[in-house]
Amino acid sequence: MAGNCTVNYEGRAASKLTWGERVLIIKADGSVLIHRRSGYEPVNWQPPKCQFRAGLEDGKVLSISAIRQEPKESLKLLFDNVTAIMSLTLTDEGEFAMHVTEEQMKRAIMLDPSLVEPGLKLISEETKMGDSGFTDVYAEDAQGRLVVIEIKRNAASREAALQLNRYVETLRKRVNRPVRGILTAPELRSGTSTLLAKLGYDFKVVSPEKCFQILKPRTDARLTEFLR
Amino acid sequence: MAGNCTVNYEGRAASKLTWGERVLIIKADGSVLIHRRSGYEPVNWQPPKCQFRAGLEDGKVLSISAIRQEPKESLKLLFDNVTAIMSLTLTDEGEFAMHVTEEQMKRAIMLDPSLVEPGLKLISEETKMGDSGFTDVYAEDAQGRLVVIEIKRNAASREAALQLNRYVETLRKRVNRPVRGILTAPELRSGTSTLLAKLGYDFKVVSPEKCFQILKPRTDARLTEFLR
Repeated sequence: MAGNCTVNYEGRAASKLTWGERVLIIKADGSVLIHRRSGYEPVNWQPPKCQFRAGLEDGKVLSISAIRQEPKESLKLLFDNVTAIMSLTLTDEGEFAMHVTEEQMKRAIMLDPSLVEPGLKLISEETKMGDSGFTDVYAEDAQGRLVVIEIKRNAASREAALQLNRYVETLRKRVNRPVRGILTAPELRSGTSTLLAKLGYDFKVVSPEKCFQILKPRTDARLTEFLR
Repeated sequence: MAGNCTVNYEGRAASKLTWGERVLIIKADGSVLIHRRSGYEPVNWQPPKCQFRAGLEDGKVLSISAIRQEPKESLKLLFDNVTAIMSLTLTDEGEFAMHVTEEQMKRAIMLDPSLVEPGLKLISEETKMGDSGFTDVYAEDAQGRLVVIEIKRNAASREAALQLNRYVETLRKRVNRPVRGILTAPELRSGTSTLLAKLGYDFKVVSPEKCFQILKPRTDARLTEFLR
């Protein structure tokens, strides 16, 4: 539906959008999107399972409310003019598949090291470390300690923890400063957590999906609009 | 535009969506959204400034490509059927305003302490601490140290750093373990950074916008769809 409207959101925070022409999308699952003429992000939205109320106010303003109970929040639109309405029944059994390689996950972590830990600074990638092979990413943490990051695309096994250990041990022989090891993966296989803890290394969940979001560039158009 | 389509994205990562009926939105600023019948997030999207190419393949399949150069990426749709097309010119000078209080920022940090630091565990809020007044959030970091978090909605001044110092000093007299102090605010006023460093405390950027996103509930519908 397209028309001239104003939008008020009230929930755990609140927002107010003054009058202007926008596109309102209501999906069958009860999710709601309000799009302005620019930017790929909606100015307001609600997740699925909203309940809706519609009515006329003063006999001339169309009111549409999308309400959720848990948490309690409501999005209320008032339209004084409706330009167009379209109703669609979409048949869609398509499958969506992402392709993110371990190499691309490494690139995502290099683009945004805070995926692993805030304050982390990248030093280099794929540092050749003697007999123990290659490490994935080599960084420095907020306290100035060296950090070896081992990246796995799938659930990480004890073998990954031992591989990280070889990298860290090799590095410790070479430098005269503390060296940490961090294993990143979407999850850990059975026993890996215990072994990692015993070796004194950290684990951080980094999934291919999270990396996809970093690799797929997003501009903060909406947020900067807030601040204009 | 609504119709039966397939979508391929290629950039720093890649994705493929097989055939199904969807809604394609192209905005005048060159941003692109593809929505499926459920979920408030688009299945594919492109930020503003895409360049477009359209044509017929084999005389019967409509091809639309949205291309960006920096970084190099392309989104290509093929339509074998178009159900509806709507073209709108939206006049919209409306203003969007968020309302997030310091109290609500605290709630956001309590809902997601990783806003401040990963591994942070909440202990309590507004612990009354003797003569020094109240602290905002009281937590434990990944290394088991106590953390006092002072939250400011606006640029934090030296006064905020001194206030944090009073809380931390009071706490240090009471407990026999390390106590850290973290000041969170959208930014620091002149001189605050030097004073914080001198006192040995950390600063973490936490903006009302970021908190608004946490407070405004989002479900990960799209991501879990990926994993089905």
